[in-house]
Amino acid sequence: MAELSRTSGVTPATIKWYLREGLLPRGAATAPNQADYGPEHVRRLRLIRALLDIGGLSMARVRSIVGAIDDPEVPLDEVVRIAHAALARDEGGASLQDGSDLAASAADAFIAGRGWSVKAASPARAELAGLVRTIAHLEGRDPTGIVGGLAPYAEAIEPIAAAEVAGLPAGSPRDLVVERLVAGTVLMERALGILRRLAQESAFEVGHKDPPAGPVA
Amino acid sequence: MAELSRTSGVTPATIKWYLREGLLPRGAATAPNQADYGPEHVRRLRLIRALLDIGGLSMARVRSIVGAIDDPEVPLDEVVRIAHAALARDEGGASLQDGSDLAASAADAFIAGRGWSVKAASPARAELAGLVRTIAHLEGRDPTGIVGGLAPYAEAIEPIAAAEVAGLPAGSPRDLVVERLVAGTVLMERALGILRRLAQESAFEVGHKDPPAGPVA
Repeated sequence: MAELSRTSGVTPATIKWYLREGLLPRGAATAPNQADYGPEHVRRLRLIRALLDIGGLSMARVRSIVGAIDDPEVPLDEVVRIAHAALARDEGGASLQDGSDLAASAADAFIAGRGWSVKAASPARAELAGLVRTIAHLEGRDPTGIVGGLAPYAEAIEPIAAAEVAGLPAGSPRDLVVERLVAGTVLMERALGILRRLAQESAFEVGHKDPPAGPVA
Repeated sequence: MAELSRTSGVTPATIKWYLREGLLPRGAATAPNQADYGPEHVRRLRLIRALLDIGGLSMARVRSIVGAIDDPEVPLDEVVRIAHAALARDEGGASLQDGSDLAASAADAFIAGRGWSVKAASPARAELAGLVRTIAHLEGRDPTGIVGGLAPYAEAIEPIAAAEVAGLPAGSPRDLVVERLVAGTVLMERALGILRRLAQESAFEVGHKDPPAGPVA
């Protein structure tokens, strides 16, 4: 336990809590108060920390993801769905919902227009409808025009997503693949946001240098 | 007040709280217990709700953004910086930091390699270093290899960010431009994440249909 704490950088108190919560599998008992931990324990600890710290997920959501990882019966696409659900912010659109559902129709038309095969119960599908509803509300615009504005974003992201799925190490053991998949889903969503902000900052910086007066060139 | 609540969909109790917190400018007093609210109040209420519900920001962060919007002395690029700081998750990398700072060096080399002009104090710069550190830790990989893997993401996002900055309505009144800028920064980061998840789900769905056995084609 002391060694696991040293290697992972997670305190023994936190490790014990994760063990009690079932987030971390128990080590092989070697004596009444002693257990052996392997590299899979270190990896799991780092995954939990990454989901909490970088992903900003709640403990409840980390628990549902880890549960799916640990259940060998859960197929890969279902693990993806669970990781997506953990990233979704359900509160979003719902609280801003008005009578009509033009936003949901526009979102569905957009998904269909891209030829994307997405389940009706997809958490991201509901999120897209909520986001379109919010923007329509905020800017007093038509949902159809808003989804039109999403096209360049979808265009840019589509090959990335396809490469991510195609690049999964198909031959590796399931737990490695699944952990990589979950970490990739959460960390790369964060990475995309960070890279967009850096590129925005740079575009601003450049635009401000010449001419110095206007907001953008 | 009753009308403002009806139009914006925000309860009077919440509106009063926002007024007390200084998030919403007071309306023009027409009688001791009566005030006039205009479209700018409706717009502001919707912006606050969008930042809280879709952006998932804390009240403290919404307050710092609204403070920057309301101060006409704050230049546009500084408003962007404040919105970026509100989106950053500082906790991230710091807690996982080890002695060396290979991750920060690798992140800086990546930014320089893309030719991006980014300030040393940029919140996104620190976040990128934190993210690289976490992934290096999680996957036991070299930070340089990890930033190499970010290249396709940066490639895809760069033209998007440039178009966003170039597309700002330069001629409009400052408060409109700034509100649009903040909403765009926060909502489109969310949109990118959602679109990536939809495209991932679709790529999985398609990969699973044929052949049905393997995780991906």
